[in-house]
Amino acid sequence: MKNYQKLEKHFIKISKFNHLAAICSWDQAAMMPSGGNTARSEAMAELALHVHQLQSQPELADLYAAAETEALSADQKSSLREMKRVWMNDKIIPADMVEAASLAGSKCEHAWRTQRGENDWAGFAENFAEVVSLSQQEAQIRAGHSSVSNQTNYDAMLNLYEPGTTTASLDTLFADVKTWLPTMVAEIAQKQKSEKAIGFGDNFPIEAQKQLGQKTMKLLGFDFDHGRLDVSVHPFCGGVPSDVRITTRYDETEFVSAMMGVVHETGHACYEQGLPKNLSGLPAGEARSMGIHESQSLFFEMQLGRSQEFLALVSPLLSELFGTNQTAAFGAENLFKAYTRVEPGYIRVDADEVTYPAHIILRYEIERDLMNGNIGYKDVPDIWAQKMQDYLGLDTKGNYKNGCIQDIHWTMGAFGYFPSYTLGAMYAAQFKASMLKTVDVNAAISSGDLSPIFDWLRSNIWQKASLYGTDDLVTQATGEPLNAAHFKAHLQARYL
Amino acid sequence: MKNYQKLEKHFIKISKFNHLAAICSWDQAAMMPSGGNTARSEAMAELALHVHQLQSQPELADLYAAAETEALSADQKSSLREMKRVWMNDKIIPADMVEAASLAGSKCEHAWRTQRGENDWAGFAENFAEVVSLSQQEAQIRAGHSSVSNQTNYDAMLNLYEPGTTTASLDTLFADVKTWLPTMVAEIAQKQKSEKAIGFGDNFPIEAQKQLGQKTMKLLGFDFDHGRLDVSVHPFCGGVPSDVRITTRYDETEFVSAMMGVVHETGHACYEQGLPKNLSGLPAGEARSMGIHESQSLFFEMQLGRSQEFLALVSPLLSELFGTNQTAAFGAENLFKAYTRVEPGYIRVDADEVTYPAHIILRYEIERDLMNGNIGYKDVPDIWAQKMQDYLGLDTKGNYKNGCIQDIHWTMGAFGYFPSYTLGAMYAAQFKASMLKTVDVNAAISSGDLSPIFDWLRSNIWQKASLYGTDDLVTQATGEPLNAAHFKAHLQARYL
Repeated sequence: MKNYQKLEKHFIKISKFNHLAAICSWDQAAMMPSGGNTARSEAMAELALHVHQLQSQPELADLYAAAETEALSADQKSSLREMKRVWMNDKIIPADMVEAASLAGSKCEHAWRTQRGENDWAGFAENFAEVVSLSQQEAQIRAGHSSVSNQTNYDAMLNLYEPGTTTASLDTLFADVKTWLPTMVAEIAQKQKSEKAIGFGDNFPIEAQKQLGQKTMKLLGFDFDHGRLDVSVHPFCGGVPSDVRITTRYDETEFVSAMMGVVHETGHACYEQGLPKNLSGLPAGEARSMGIHESQSLFFEMQLGRSQEFLALVSPLLSELFGTNQTAAFGAENLFKAYTRVEPGYIRVDADEVTYPAHIILRYEIERDLMNGNIGYKDVPDIWAQKMQDYLGLDTKGNYKNGCIQDIHWTMGAFGYFPSYTLGAMYAAQFKASMLKTVDVNAAISSGDLSPIFDWLRSNIWQKASLYGTDDLVTQATGEPLNAAHFKAHLQARYL
Repeated sequence: MKNYQKLEKHFIKISKFNHLAAICSWDQAAMMPSGGNTARSEAMAELALHVHQLQSQPELADLYAAAETEALSADQKSSLREMKRVWMNDKIIPADMVEAASLAGSKCEHAWRTQRGENDWAGFAENFAEVVSLSQQEAQIRAGHSSVSNQTNYDAMLNLYEPGTTTASLDTLFADVKTWLPTMVAEIAQKQKSEKAIGFGDNFPIEAQKQLGQKTMKLLGFDFDHGRLDVSVHPFCGGVPSDVRITTRYDETEFVSAMMGVVHETGHACYEQGLPKNLSGLPAGEARSMGIHESQSLFFEMQLGRSQEFLALVSPLLSELFGTNQTAAFGAENLFKAYTRVEPGYIRVDADEVTYPAHIILRYEIERDLMNGNIGYKDVPDIWAQKMQDYLGLDTKGNYKNGCIQDIHWTMGAFGYFPSYTLGAMYAAQFKASMLKTVDVNAAISSGDLSPIFDWLRSNIWQKASLYGTDDLVTQATGEPLNAAHFKAHLQARYL
């Protein structure tokens, strides 16, 4: 066996343990009774340690060195690069730091669940200090081991979620958005003053909403032989490519959020289901990055789901499932109004697609400065309040619960993740613009057979998995690397 | 750290991997879409290999030797004995034989799923030959390593499921049953000729049956903070003590099977939920044996569930959930008639508690002779047909599907498991007889507060886990080792 094949075998073995972790993690969120949590968390931690050990074995160094001299196909070279990336990311962090960070993150996240409701910044800050400190240490180690010279600490963290993306590129990208976004939000608000949607009723039985979700998933090409829809407090897409588990949450008084949440998660799911089978179990066969993953969920949600053509497909389902006494409200035009309402708000996860980037830019600027040591964790609330005022004209002073402690990411030390959301929205708009050159997207949606759209995504994104870097992937698909002009044009076309 | 503590730590680590295996295995049966099966089976096999490696490490030999010289409490001595038993059971079988047996079992079981429906003994026999041969080899190795001199091959297999039970004791036990069972069945048939139950309707919505199951589980003390009820093709009790997963299957045309199936699995579940927390993760903290496990499910099903007092608790639930137009059929007395109908039949899992032992004795005699090499796998159908005629007066010649290939156990090489069912029924009757000395069982059931019953089981069985051998456990609880007279007396009292 070639050394390259030995590495493949090792990573396929790791993927089997990751399979079990993914299913047990889904179970923990969607099925497990609360009394099972302690033992489950301990079992998951043991498994994580085992995977970390397998993934960071120092003796793999020789295999990498030998494999790099072997005659490999282009795909194998990519595969080798990705295996090495995973190994390096794990290997450079000492096991006791992994454990300390995991413990500090669990502690902070667990306490946050109640502290958030109690608007308790002071209590939160006590745990947060340790999380920030450990993440800074981790970032420093990662930056020190980087092949890029003078990499900043934040760049090193960013690379975990968006390999190849840099602070320099994000600074430029977001600086541009900040020049036009506030004006655009104001203009849309003005325009929408006279465009109120008709309100919906307040009785939407959960069983009917579940059927709506499943019918919508079928429209969107979800393969139910390789996945499920369930319920959890925080919706997510989990499981494994052969068995993708998405979740949503239902509120009997409204269907709007759950329905679009399902569309969003279905985008993540179709990416996973569409990954190439011949690279199954290898890092090169996994999704490219968090930003590209989000580009698929946001393509489904924003480019497809909130289009008037797609809402026209959903419209008759609503009458079928919820009764025929709201025909006007359930009309495609009214649904479109409801699903494209723009309004600055406190909460990121509830934000519309126009104000959403402001939430991200704010978080990006804070986490960047935190990781690079330019601000301290104590500075976060004031900076947050100031930026909220600047970018969205909202006052969050003292309102921590709807301010700087609203998200789960930082509690667990996931600094560098937030930009993925807006990168995803931008990639989605760029993919749509490129797709339009060969696919009549609106006609496909209106016909109810969206397969030409999925075929484009499958061959340009899903099947390419991690064989290419993000820039290469995007350039192959659209002829250019990330270009935020497509996102701006999309917002202008839809909202102005 | 003492060597004993090092062993504890090692086994607690193993239990964490077993936790994940239990949850993923439940998921596979209750949640997983069929397309996920290949990847899941591969992941489970990788985990099983990992557990086998941890459990059979030769280097543990030194730890055992050293631990045996340490000052240990009585419980620690039991714990050490059980750790060593698990280790020995795994260590003596070479990894390639474990793999070969697992592959042969999977192949035979998978093909059996369709062969059974097609009554295809010839096709089944092709795979079965290999399963029997590998099991015989395994049995021979186990017998050769036994500390008991001249242990038969079958005894060695029996020890996996019923440590301490021997062919000699089972031969005596079952020979006695065979002297009185056929007469008893005939007498009951005569008596029940004039005792037909009123038939039930044929429309029992699944949602209502599910609620019936959950209400029944609550009556029986199931802790929903540490467990769930779901659906699978073959009902089972899985999961872990902190999170017990039971399943049932629903048929909209009748509620009788699902309801009593839930009672049965709840017995298994309450045993698991009642195991001692301070021994959590250690072999000594696990259920004593398959027979004792079955004694708890059968205590719930036969001693409690099919009593007229318990059925009187269920009766109002039926009217509440399925409507009030079957009041006579739903009456406790009629339910009792329906749930105590005795009739010889082909299928073990559908058998009543009186004819059930005949199904077990037949299987016991065949698997004993197979493992000891006194008969060959080709002889099974003829011997089966002959014994079915002798014990239950039924002709199964050529009817393999309702005969010798009806069960899953042998397909996977689980020779030695079947006696557990009847041992369980006997232990259950013995526990009940002993419990009656201090607990007014019928009064407790009638009051709707069954806790005195569960208290007895908790302190005498559940909390003792595997601290004692089966004989000691039973003697401590009832003053004597297994005594089948209690089972016979129970049948006589209920049916004659």
